[in-house]
Amino acid sequence: MDLVQRVQPDFVKGQGLLPTVVVDANTKDVLMVAWMNEESYKRTLATKETWFWSRSRQELWHKGGTSGHTQQVVRATLDCDGDTLLLEVIPKGPACHTGASSCFFNEIELL
Amino acid sequence: MDLVQRVQPDFVKGQGLLPTVVVDANTKDVLMVAWMNEESYKRTLATKETWFWSRSRQELWHKGGTSGHTQQVVRATLDCDGDTLLLEVIPKGPACHTGASSCFFNEIELL
Repeated sequence: MDLVQRVQPDFVKGQGLLPTVVVDANTKDVLMVAWMNEESYKRTLATKETWFWSRSRQELWHKGGTSGHTQQVVRATLDCDGDTLLLEVIPKGPACHTGASSCFFNEIELL
Repeated sequence: MDLVQRVQPDFVKGQGLLPTVVVDANTKDVLMVAWMNEESYKRTLATKETWFWSRSRQELWHKGGTSGHTQQVVRATLDCDGDTLLLEVIPKGPACHTGASSCFFNEIELL
């Protein structure tokens, strides 16, 4: 029995889309969460840059394709049941369209 | 004008569910991704422990409610457009049902 379980991405459960967490490989900061369909998954692995599926525009989206703020993928991991992807990247610029390095900047007050 | 923008969670866009990234507050490891509806969001903020919505069981789920492996929330952040939540937690045990500390252990080979 092979102890290394090769889990494949489960594009069925999420109706064709896998939530993808992008973290900075150096700082470990969570930069963004975006959606990946099978085609963007293939392109991400082939190019080692992040590709997503834009739910609002309904199109493939090469992160940094116009801004130049691409993300070089250095590690990719699926979770236990293969329905979520984690990418460790070296970002060439801010992840957020607002110009912030990370999209997660709206802190919720915990009382 | 208030420079601090108070973004509210957008439960509409994700058909009532917000993808939620849970990271270890100390190691910054991504532990798991799960789904939150409005009720689990309220309970998480009220109890400072993680509550989710199980899509497969269609029920509220108090993480660690039976195993004792609860997650104490020490920081919560919404992303730029309020449709994804990031929780920093102190875990009382492994995050994964397999017993692994993190659900992300299936590394994808990058050729």
